Amino acid sequence: MLPVDTAAQQQEPAESPFGWLADADRVRRAAGLRRELRPRAADSPLLDLAGNDYLGLTRHPEVVRAGADACLRWGAGATGSRLVTGTTALHAELEAELAAFTGFEAALVFASGYAANLAAITALTGPGTLLVSDAANHASLIDGCRLSKATTEVVRHADPDAVRKALQGLHDGTARDADGHQGHGDPDARALVVSDAVFSVDGDAAPLAGLVAACRAHGAALLLDDAHGLGVMGEGGRGSANAAGLAGAPDVVCTVTLSKSFGAQGGAVLGPAVVIEHLVNAARSFIFDTGLAPAAAGAALAALRLLRREPDRAGRARQVARDFHRLLAERGLDVTAPDACVVSVRAPTPGSALAWAARCRDEGLAVGCFRPPSVPDGVSRLRLTARCDLTGRQVRRAVDVIAATAPPR
Amino acid sequence: MLPVDTAAQQQEPAESPFGWLADADRVRRAAGLRRELRPRAADSPLLDLAGNDYLGLTRHPEVVRAGADACLRWGAGATGSRLVTGTTALHAELEAELAAFTGFEAALVFASGYAANLAAITALTGPGTLLVSDAANHASLIDGCRLSKATTEVVRHADPDAVRKALQGLHDGTARDADGHQGHGDPDARALVVSDAVFSVDGDAAPLAGLVAACRAHGAALLLDDAHGLGVMGEGGRGSANAAGLAGAPDVVCTVTLSKSFGAQGGAVLGPAVVIEHLVNAARSFIFDTGLAPAAAGAALAALRLLRREPDRAGRARQVARDFHRLLAERGLDVTAPDACVVSVRAPTPGSALAWAARCRDEGLAVGCFRPPSVPDGVSRLRLTARCDLTGRQVRRAVDVIAATAPPR
Repeated sequence: MLPVDTAAQQQEPAESPFGWLADADRVRRAAGLRRELRPRAADSPLLDLAGNDYLGLTRHPEVVRAGADACLRWGAGATGSRLVTGTTALHAELEAELAAFTGFEAALVFASGYAANLAAITALTGPGTLLVSDAANHASLIDGCRLSKATTEVVRHADPDAVRKALQGLHDGTARDADGHQGHGDPDARALVVSDAVFSVDGDAAPLAGLVAACRAHGAALLLDDAHGLGVMGEGGRGSANAAGLAGAPDVVCTVTLSKSFGAQGGAVLGPAVVIEHLVNAARSFIFDTGLAPAAAGAALAALRLLRREPDRAGRARQVARDFHRLLAERGLDVTAPDACVVSVRAPTPGSALAWAARCRDEGLAVGCFRPPSVPDGVSRLRLTARCDLTGRQVRRAVDVIAATAPPR
Repeated sequence: MLPVDTAAQQQEPAESPFGWLADADRVRRAAGLRRELRPRAADSPLLDLAGNDYLGLTRHPEVVRAGADACLRWGAGATGSRLVTGTTALHAELEAELAAFTGFEAALVFASGYAANLAAITALTGPGTLLVSDAANHASLIDGCRLSKATTEVVRHADPDAVRKALQGLHDGTARDADGHQGHGDPDARALVVSDAVFSVDGDAAPLAGLVAACRAHGAALLLDDAHGLGVMGEGGRGSANAAGLAGAPDVVCTVTLSKSFGAQGGAVLGPAVVIEHLVNAARSFIFDTGLAPAAAGAALAALRLLRREPDRAGRARQVARDFHRLLAERGLDVTAPDACVVSVRAPTPGSALAWAARCRDEGLAVGCFRPPSVPDGVSRLRLTARCDLTGRQVRRAVDVIAATAPPR
């Protein structure tokens, strides 16, 4: 099967070391947890309630035109690390406008929100740091904690008292490091509290006032992932931190994505200038990654400017989410109350969730289907996303379909 | 400084928990290791020898047109995870053509090469796996090892005997886990050997024949990062694994970027179909990241097709690199012999490397300047990249500038 060649000649025969993957696949199939990619067409007739395009901007004429123009003007790629050739004037412009819009001192753009989270967590922590992480945090925050050399304490979801208790342990010596050894109660010990600002699966907002109070009582920094809040939370979509009066605070860092409300690709860290300068120098997923493609930077910038001009998009998107919640609850479905634009409807089993989503698709509706391990509580659900450009008629039709295709409870 | 608001009211005063960053900054400045972003203009007059656009495609009319068209047709973003809404027919087309071009059974496209490396390493290893990692591997491979639950053994750069010795320990029980405990000599224990195929700093190729022989003698899988090999190594740029007769082998997985030779953004994993299916189901940086933006996918696909039509670009780029090496060595500079398109010129100190790069820039030449911690051996250097579209006159002029501005040795 191999072409004859110097490297392949006279070797041991090539056997697959991946036999164990077939076993893993059988386990997944048996549990109804196997995933397959489903390529969509450019002119798909499905009503999209599965993507994260909350403001309806990803195919907006102004946004795609700006993306296309940036590609033509700057090239298809950034050509290198942001530290070498990958920073264009367009990146700098986007960073300045992002910071100004959200109210933070400075911003740094990444090729993905995932990379932004890895960067912020790893660069702002070290072996002596206590990381306090909400149990329902997004995978990229969890991976950031895993990649960090800090000690991570996972605390109950949306519970500032649990955060306070964890931080108390930092100074009284009850915190334990990764090996289970008790800490030393070092008064200079640092701590970083990490939380989604809007949780990605159920769409609930974090208790920001309680979190920041807990942090400030213990000198801890607060890192908020506002991937699902930027563009929809706060006045004109300026984000969760801005809405809570925390934007620009010296102890708050925020990560966002450019791939949801802003319809493009990429992520950013927002925070004090001293934090952003440190990330430029120390964050491995910034230094060792190619910069964001100009098309994505240009499209995100156009989306931001459009939102500044049409700030009502934020409130309308949240209103659509509340409409979904009310109408689905009226049909007796087990639906979460949305703080932003994500609405979750619980299903009895992974298999029934998958079949439910398939029936919705047959009826012209694309809905998300979240199953383990993508759900923090192991409960499978349909995940619906509200968009500001959905009409009342589309919402009612979608609710009809979802209710009519629901599995028996 | 804070707007008065519910979350900020009645809290402890906000003090910066980031005072330690100022100390970190002072240390960096004192050591000549501070980095700053330097935004470039779209019409920069500098001759670019710093980016990774080896085939001169990132601003090629066909490539940027394809990127722009994809943005207009598909939207500025993928709108969601590849598992939800983020897989378009364009992604599927790119994956099929990437696999066919490189000779692998299947391909999976990621938002970045960084994410592809994290995915491949973490999803193909577990607590019982031995990871053997070359000491000069790229940061994204190192972070993949750190994020994995496997035991990692770092071995001497480009040394198949060291790999063989590490793998021997897997079965005879001398390998040690992360806590330093000796292993059990489990005959079913798995191992993954991880190496850059072309090393990013010095541009040397990995000893693939020796590596695969070591792997096959011990039933280990081989993961090659061909970020700097795709497009320039092998017949018509089909990559390092293809050149070595290893493409399509059941025990070889390869990661590549779409942001270097292909001029766009993103990364991919190439390998047996069973591996790709597993990544779809298990790789967190695939499942929990927004899909690659259509503009980048479209541009990369156009670049791939252009390279198929003009396969000589690969060999020409490598020839330019050899020309750089020969001419710089003739001037008495300490320059690495390139196997692909990266040429490194050593500098005495970080400060002199930075000043050297600045003098080159003053003379119209953009060159990379790599300093700790971006260099595995602590040696600062200029990093030059060859492009297939550089003329002999441009190469000679660049060599004149680099030699004339060199620090005293």
